[in-house]
Amino acid sequence: MTETAAAVPNDVMERLAAAIDANFEQQVAFLQQLVQFRSLRGEEAPVQDWLAGEFEARGYMVDRFNLADVDLMRHPKAAPMDGIALDGSKQVVATLDSEGKGRSLILQGHIDVVPEGPPDLWNDPPYEAIVRDGWMIGRGAQDMKAGVSAMIFALDAIKAAGFVPDGRVHLETVTEEESTGNGALSTLMRGYTADACLIPEPTGHTLTRAQVGAIWFRLRVRGTPVHVAYAETGTNAILSAMHLIRAFQEHTKEINTRATSNAWFAKVKDPIKFNVGIIKGGDWASSTPAWCDLDCRLGVLPGETPAQAMAGIEQCLAKAQAADSFLSENPVELVWSGFQADPAVCEPGSAAEAALAEVHARVFEQPLDVRLSTAVNDTRYYTVDYGIPALCYGPYGIGPHAFDERVDLDSVRKTTLSIAMFVAQWCGLRKA
Amino acid sequence: MTETAAAVPNDVMERLAAAIDANFEQQVAFLQQLVQFRSLRGEEAPVQDWLAGEFEARGYMVDRFNLADVDLMRHPKAAPMDGIALDGSKQVVATLDSEGKGRSLILQGHIDVVPEGPPDLWNDPPYEAIVRDGWMIGRGAQDMKAGVSAMIFALDAIKAAGFVPDGRVHLETVTEEESTGNGALSTLMRGYTADACLIPEPTGHTLTRAQVGAIWFRLRVRGTPVHVAYAETGTNAILSAMHLIRAFQEHTKEINTRATSNAWFAKVKDPIKFNVGIIKGGDWASSTPAWCDLDCRLGVLPGETPAQAMAGIEQCLAKAQAADSFLSENPVELVWSGFQADPAVCEPGSAAEAALAEVHARVFEQPLDVRLSTAVNDTRYYTVDYGIPALCYGPYGIGPHAFDERVDLDSVRKTTLSIAMFVAQWCGLRKA
Repeated sequence: MTETAAAVPNDVMERLAAAIDANFEQQVAFLQQLVQFRSLRGEEAPVQDWLAGEFEARGYMVDRFNLADVDLMRHPKAAPMDGIALDGSKQVVATLDSEGKGRSLILQGHIDVVPEGPPDLWNDPPYEAIVRDGWMIGRGAQDMKAGVSAMIFALDAIKAAGFVPDGRVHLETVTEEESTGNGALSTLMRGYTADACLIPEPTGHTLTRAQVGAIWFRLRVRGTPVHVAYAETGTNAILSAMHLIRAFQEHTKEINTRATSNAWFAKVKDPIKFNVGIIKGGDWASSTPAWCDLDCRLGVLPGETPAQAMAGIEQCLAKAQAADSFLSENPVELVWSGFQADPAVCEPGSAAEAALAEVHARVFEQPLDVRLSTAVNDTRYYTVDYGIPALCYGPYGIGPHAFDERVDLDSVRKTTLSIAMFVAQWCGLRKA
Repeated sequence: MTETAAAVPNDVMERLAAAIDANFEQQVAFLQQLVQFRSLRGEEAPVQDWLAGEFEARGYMVDRFNLADVDLMRHPKAAPMDGIALDGSKQVVATLDSEGKGRSLILQGHIDVVPEGPPDLWNDPPYEAIVRDGWMIGRGAQDMKAGVSAMIFALDAIKAAGFVPDGRVHLETVTEEESTGNGALSTLMRGYTADACLIPEPTGHTLTRAQVGAIWFRLRVRGTPVHVAYAETGTNAILSAMHLIRAFQEHTKEINTRATSNAWFAKVKDPIKFNVGIIKGGDWASSTPAWCDLDCRLGVLPGETPAQAMAGIEQCLAKAQAADSFLSENPVELVWSGFQADPAVCEPGSAAEAALAEVHARVFEQPLDVRLSTAVNDTRYYTVDYGIPALCYGPYGIGPHAFDERVDLDSVRKTTLSIAMFVAQWCGLRKA
């Protein structure tokens, strides 16, 4: 294992590029199939089974396991699963080990997608993976099935060009990235580590330098239902929920005031987002609603911990309740419903980043830009908990979590080359 | 048919009271069965079938029909059904016609109930009709199955006491009272009219002098979903919905300012209630919600019309949208989702009211009080549209639309006598 490695020769790069181009029609078809799986949370098993078959067909050693197999909840960083069965959440790790002397690498991507929302608000069907004008359109096309296709086809290109990586490579597809991160965590608990990790989230060819953490929580507000004729004698849980939303908006402002002196996010306007993502309440238009549930997400600043953020959420809630005569007598139930994600920093100066910067500059003919992310990604377990340099870097697309989500196919092609080159640079290649 | 009638003799009252007492255990058991039917909107057919059987067993002529049978939607006062099938909404009219010379009467009650809400918030199961300490507990026990039992057992007592009403009586059980009123309307469209109507809603032995109208509407708010990381580039439909709720709260204040000079409601504080009864929005905690639906109810002052109220709702919405840069470009869908109910006044001085006042005073040994109702009931079609005096008067209970709804069984017993006496006073009795 060496900390520096000679540049990948130009002719190797050309062979990799040619292999990717030759195979690109097949890669697009593969990505279409991947997008056509509606792999919502809890429904990822079919796509994982299909991917495991794809990896086996390539001759990789494939380990299929689920979150129960690693006894997930024993890990202090395991996040609550909120009704999702541990044994139904399947992970796939394919290993390509040439027993060479090069550095080892994890290429990891998540295959869970967020709900598509009302299909009538899409201009194209969300799971048909339509290709038009150089884009592929669909839920998950960008976030992050394009990246998954890139890491798989990068290895295919290396093989097609007549090489094998000179270090062990784990190719991993995980669940739970959009809700807890438990999928990524489980691969580490299963024992899969390496000298570096690359996660091709759709960063638009930038490297994520720092990212916030995130907490998910649910507020279960109760009311006193009465006939609307006597509305003043009851308490409307929906209006109480509005009171709490306003309280959390104020709380978020306070955190963003602190953010102005944060080491990483000082120059980002309001990097901490509070989101009420789901609301459900009441049963009848003419009854004051007896209940209202809010599903919320709040970011965590680098330098602060999930535990601190959760304490802040508890304090905000307590203060908002104390200010309301009904809520002070009828406390809201606070449920930790998913993410308890650390913020993370990709510390500058790693050999992995240097390798990526070098190959990126060659592929894109411009220097590697970095970005600050106001969302989480799975690299945090590697950097924060396992001391493994982890790079979040992937293709360009539009509309993560939005309608008409799409990925730029030319960017997918270049990202595939960039990843193939990164494997070559980091692990080294040798003739097959 | 006479406008005044001699008082019902004391011995007749005693015989009616004795018959009601003798049969009261059976009446309570009947009411329990009635409450045990979970007759939510759209699910009323089983209880209507059972009631029709009960009426047939009593020898009444029974007409069973549904809302499609009367071609409901041709009536200008028919309210939108919002996904409930017309032909599944069954009505039952039982007729007891001795071909006597007395005045005719409609006794009508609704058997639809509003949803019970989360069962864990009830102290007793909502559909077991538990009897304890003189109360029967359950959804619909008060509103208004107790009244339905009272009108049925009032006629049973008349028969048990050896009499028949001297005028035609229609005993009607209807659906849709809690959502549109279309059940009651359909009986009138079917041709059932009479010289008076009594609806034993749970008024606590008061007569409803005036009642507000009501409009149901749904606001379908759209947003632009994005990953929460870019929350500022999307628009959160839940926050937009909060903006609209505030606008309708202001709108309601304006109506209640007008109410201070209303002929009937001037002395009632805030008689017009705005209720957000149901809210649903968003699909994912970490996506800005793309949609939020609000189901709302707004009262209508006597002297104003549903059409005016609906125009006011449209204006309020237009103004709220104009004040919001996103909503002004992405208008909310406004759906009329149920009630378009007239306000109504039970004009003082009717012979029907005089008859009720007389028998009430004898049964309860106190004068008949009147009340102003900030909710709607089915009498409005009789008084407003068909010129039939209609009395809303029934038993005492607690918690309509609330948890632990209950009815006072001693009140049910007295109300049954009061209704039997009203039939005697209004229609006259003759020996069977």
